[in-house]
Amino acid sequence: MDKIPVGILGATGMVGQTLVQMLDRHPWFEVTELAASERSAGKTYEEALDGRWNVSSEIPAYAKDLKVRECTPKLDCKFVFSALDSSVAHEIEESFARNGYGVSSNAKNHRMDRDVPLLIPEINAEHLDLIRVQQKLRKWKGFIVTDPNCSTIGMCVVLKPLFDKFGIEKVIATTMQALSGAGYPGVASMDIVDNVLPYIRDEEEKMESEPLKILGTMKNGKIQDAAFRISAQCNRVAVRHGHTEAISVQLSKHADENEILAAWKGFNPLKSLGLPTAPEHPIAYHREPNRPQPKLDANLGSGMTVSIGKLRKCSVLDYKFTILSHNLVRGAAGAALLNAELLKSKGYFEG
Amino acid sequence: MDKIPVGILGATGMVGQTLVQMLDRHPWFEVTELAASERSAGKTYEEALDGRWNVSSEIPAYAKDLKVRECTPKLDCKFVFSALDSSVAHEIEESFARNGYGVSSNAKNHRMDRDVPLLIPEINAEHLDLIRVQQKLRKWKGFIVTDPNCSTIGMCVVLKPLFDKFGIEKVIATTMQALSGAGYPGVASMDIVDNVLPYIRDEEEKMESEPLKILGTMKNGKIQDAAFRISAQCNRVAVRHGHTEAISVQLSKHADENEILAAWKGFNPLKSLGLPTAPEHPIAYHREPNRPQPKLDANLGSGMTVSIGKLRKCSVLDYKFTILSHNLVRGAAGAALLNAELLKSKGYFEG
Amino acid sequence: MDKIPVGILGATGMVGQTLVQMLDRHPWFEVTELAASERSAGKTYEEALDGRWNVSSEIPAYAKDLKVRECTPKLDCKFVFSALDSSVAHEIEESFARNGYGVSSNAKNHRMDRDVPLLIPEINAEHLDLIRVQQKLRKWKGFIVTDPNCSTIGMCVVLKPLFDKFGIEKVIATTMQALSGAGYPGVASMDIVDNVLPYIRDEEEKMESEPLKILGTMKNGKIQDAAFRISAQCNRVAVRHGHTEAISVQLSKHADENEILAAWKGFNPLKSLGLPTAPEHPIAYHREPNRPQPKLDANLGSGMTVSIGKLRKCSVLDYKFTILSHNLVRGAAGAALLNAELLKSKGYFEG
Amino acid sequence: MDKIPVGILGATGMVGQTLVQMLDRHPWFEVTELAASERSAGKTYEEALDGRWNVSSEIPAYAKDLKVRECTPKLDCKFVFSALDSSVAHEIEESFARNGYGVSSNAKNHRMDRDVPLLIPEINAEHLDLIRVQQKLRKWKGFIVTDPNCSTIGMCVVLKPLFDKFGIEKVIATTMQALSGAGYPGVASMDIVDNVLPYIRDEEEKMESEPLKILGTMKNGKIQDAAFRISAQCNRVAVRHGHTEAISVQLSKHADENEILAAWKGFNPLKSLGLPTAPEHPIAYHREPNRPQPKLDANLGSGMTVSIGKLRKCSVLDYKFTILSHNLVRGAAGAALLNAELLKSKGYFEG
Repeated sequence: MDKIPVGILGATGMVGQTLVQMLDRHPWFEVTELAASERSAGKTYEEALDGRWNVSSEIPAYAKDLKVRECTPKLDCKFVFSALDSSVAHEIEESFARNGYGVSSNAKNHRMDRDVPLLIPEINAEHLDLIRVQQKLRKWKGFIVTDPNCSTIGMCVVLKPLFDKFGIEKVIATTMQALSGAGYPGVASMDIVDNVLPYIRDEEEKMESEPLKILGTMKNGKIQDAAFRISAQCNRVAVRHGHTEAISVQLSKHADENEILAAWKGFNPLKSLGLPTAPEHPIAYHREPNRPQPKLDANLGSGMTVSIGKLRKCSVLDYKFTILSHNLVRGAAGAALLNAELLKSKGYFEG
Repeated sequence: MDKIPVGILGATGMVGQTLVQMLDRHPWFEVTELAASERSAGKTYEEALDGRWNVSSEIPAYAKDLKVRECTPKLDCKFVFSALDSSVAHEIEESFARNGYGVSSNAKNHRMDRDVPLLIPEINAEHLDLIRVQQKLRKWKGFIVTDPNCSTIGMCVVLKPLFDKFGIEKVIATTMQALSGAGYPGVASMDIVDNVLPYIRDEEEKMESEPLKILGTMKNGKIQDAAFRISAQCNRVAVRHGHTEAISVQLSKHADENEILAAWKGFNPLKSLGLPTAPEHPIAYHREPNRPQPKLDANLGSGMTVSIGKLRKCSVLDYKFTILSHNLVRGAAGAALLNAELLKSKGYFEG
Repeated sequence: MDKIPVGILGATGMVGQTLVQMLDRHPWFEVTELAASERSAGKTYEEALDGRWNVSSEIPAYAKDLKVRECTPKLDCKFVFSALDSSVAHEIEESFARNGYGVSSNAKNHRMDRDVPLLIPEINAEHLDLIRVQQKLRKWKGFIVTDPNCSTIGMCVVLKPLFDKFGIEKVIATTMQALSGAGYPGVASMDIVDNVLPYIRDEEEKMESEPLKILGTMKNGKIQDAAFRISAQCNRVAVRHGHTEAISVQLSKHADENEILAAWKGFNPLKSLGLPTAPEHPIAYHREPNRPQPKLDANLGSGMTVSIGKLRKCSVLDYKFTILSHNLVRGAAGAALLNAELLKSKGYFEG
Repeated sequence: MDKIPVGILGATGMVGQTLVQMLDRHPWFEVTELAASERSAGKTYEEALDGRWNVSSEIPAYAKDLKVRECTPKLDCKFVFSALDSSVAHEIEESFARNGYGVSSNAKNHRMDRDVPLLIPEINAEHLDLIRVQQKLRKWKGFIVTDPNCSTIGMCVVLKPLFDKFGIEKVIATTMQALSGAGYPGVASMDIVDNVLPYIRDEEEKMESEPLKILGTMKNGKIQDAAFRISAQCNRVAVRHGHTEAISVQLSKHADENEILAAWKGFNPLKSLGLPTAPEHPIAYHREPNRPQPKLDANLGSGMTVSIGKLRKCSVLDYKFTILSHNLVRGAAGAALLNAELLKSKGYFEG
């Protein structure tokens, strides 16, 4: 099979770099275009990075000498990943969609648009039907799909099996989020070494709204949002990768602990699709009392598995537990990539 | 005025060291006895520490050459602070109380005994009446008062004004606790650098039970526990000093944000007592959206002020906010010391 | 005595903030002017900081509402501290000196000018004679004195007594420097959490050249540089405050360990001057094998004492040892302040 | 080919765990025996670890349920890796060698014995001839080979090509060592978060003596030590994995920078042997001015490649540069494993 040529918008940022890394030797896709800001355009990718390669020891060979281009819809491919900053993503992504490109975006700009899928393949693949709506409404030949905020994704993967089996009434979540979630240079070291920052701009709003759309149901070309309440408190801690979240949940129906564990264990809706980036298990439950931990568990399933631990009764809501997911992989680059793989497997790359 | 001679049991540990530091040039008390394990007894305090002095650059001059004694009730003083490990505190503290010593303990062993005050001077000074009950029941000439767990104290100081003005129904708290709370050597560096530990042994149980006793009311020589529900999730983060807690609370009566802020602002029940270690303000509310932070706020009021920030509506309970308090000072050594000062001011050092 | 009005240029940066803090209730000086970039001018100091106050819990009361002014020589004082970034310091500092202000600068721009003192009061107070040379040469009514780079100062304080007693031939120094030395936002957290950065721009060059001027001798209105060789390797580590330096030194004359310790112990040339910011001991030698450490020793002498430890034979040069000094205090703000105090005590504020 | 059965002594410690990990699916060896202290014996490996698995998310499947045995020479294999603590290694390793086992040891106990190879396969494979000497002298059927201290190995790999081409006169090294080098629990978090420890017990002595033996030449069954001088200063920093070392070196012959770079580049003595754990390149030189860094470079070559950067003139000795190597892999577990692979390829597993 010939590989499908794809581009990466915002390729020099931290999410862009992770995409460059994850797409190295990808069985379906081949990166033919790296695009970034005007300042980088014309340089090789390595020059454009100027020492800011942050993912591992070496820039993948395929990318090193690729000439970086501007983020205009003249790239030689039909599909692009957008790791653009939200300050510029709105315009640029729309210009690509208008010009016939499929766009898998990690930016927040279009997430809550009623005609744009906010996609987690394990949860709401049927939301892809919005693409037709979107194309009709906006008169686009291409389309945009988005992935959720990095702290939202892990929580939604974990809530979905509970939502399906028992219903959800209320969720309280407190996050301890990793530094790479803020990009580069991101959080100043003087703000976080020996410290906790109890604030991440706009993060709580995203965590409280996005899941309701994600867990919503398609009806007549529209998403009907899920109806439960979420309250989030978001904090930054001195961890490189891996968002930890302490969650309490109130269910609609009674469930005992074994039923909950079984719901998580049985959750693997992508199993039969053979998506290259889909982990063998989307959820891993750890029985040790001191797990999950970023350093031990963030890379589970190549960073795509969400870890859970410490399920126990909550005296205020029903249950509480701790989750962990790799914010740059499951929560950003891997999310955009898995979305693209779903699109491919559902036929959205044809024609 | 002659200073009152006092002793410190468990003087070489991290809480003991902080007491040694805080009692340097104390206007009321003079440390005449430092006691620790057999292994340390007979050495000077400096020798016994063997390089493990961890509080600041220098051991206070008064303590350096003091001969460390065993923790037996033959110390030359009438009052002792106990910073003993819970594995030995039970026996030793009782032997001191039996032999006529007043004991201000930081150990967990006697906290939940129905005849022992679990004291936060700003909150439940009237619980000192339990001392008479305790002495009668146990036939002790001395007595034991305890201070709460380090993650409990900050939360109780903050809840007390709300409890009094509006009543409390439910509390959900997620902690991000500092390393010094685990003592020394405590948390292994490989467990916490670039990591979060979602587990602190027995900590959640303490946070869920102690506040109900602390906020309870004395009736006929008994404490009637407060009746609300607390659910806690406790985590360790890579911070040296200062426990951060994300709290959601449901009140019994409606309160708007200004009423809550006013309740916190007006809270200063010790103001007239002149206790040396009582901070000018037990509570400080920070209006900046990214406060409180351990590095900026843990030392406020010489470590005795509890910081609050980010008060806002909670969509599941009523309100949410973040608190921060210095776990070694307000949460341990300073707590035991303030308890002793209250005892002194209430006449418990006479006779 | 009426206090002397002074201004701070670059008052919002990390060194500026530390000056604001250190000048709170200073016995000789009173800050009447805070100046910063155009962007900040016209705002109150608190507004200009916009949440970036990084030194402690509270902005000193005197500074909070002071109106920030532009860095032009129209400030209502005769003396200014410059904590300006080197990209703008050159022009601005000269304009102040030209207009009759005394300038105590922390910027690198004028440090190596042959007619500008590179001053450490304990070491080369006599270099102040350069001020007359400078004023004559440049036709200035005011003047500029500078303090050395933060990693240079500690090393020079420690080398000076050895230089005087035994002579120095060669120095090899490897630094482990704190984050606050890079200002704010400075080092990105993703670059330093769980990492070491083996590079600080231009730092090694400063460490290898500045000491030779500092330890130089005044002759006929000129400084004759000291003649020995320094080789530095500079690294950044995840420490908030306090530069640690591993140093090997070759002396001109034989010296045994006791003679070296005695030279350090006896070093206190400012003792009789009564400068408010001069520490009781400029040097503290720690005998414990695991000292000095940033967390224990950086604040010694209110951050103005340089710590040394681990003196032992070096099998390549003569001796090796470890030093530590507070980069923001002894190495920047406190250095500029001590320089000003020396100027005052030497009569440079009169007339 | 049937795999060779091997055992691991001290399998529960941090080096032991890394060996368990590195030997998972090893092409030549199969771990049939895990041995540890009495306390662990009889438990499965997972039980014995009791939650202290620290290497990655999951204990390899092969090891999980293996029954841990005592460290007595009754293990069902002919070759053992020793990751024992030095407090017990001496006796146990000798008992294995006496009883016919080959022992690849990471402990310090036998390193400096004149009849025991202190082996780095790239450097001194010919030192294996000592095994015959050792067996004859000690009347052992088995034998012991050792690998050097974790901070020594990286430095020796880097010095060897210089030593061969230009000769070495003097070396000054300052280390910034990772936490995992101290084992588990190892360094207390309160000692290292926001701190540097300028002390590692016995480490400087090892760095100053071991390289001379390693770089020594075999003559008549004896090693003649290399004759140059090394001075080391060892520090611990808050990094999980990867020792950084700032090195200055004086050569015997003149060499320009290109010659040095060429010497490093051309160094690959194991190339033809096909040892599974030997990296493609034992040395990687990084041209970026801010490299090597632990987070980016420690895992290069699966942790077996030593990184170098920042080669430049030293004004005191000839050249200076920074090196980095993974202390647990290249510096311990991988070192012991590579030694075993060399032994196998040289025929020491036969008979």
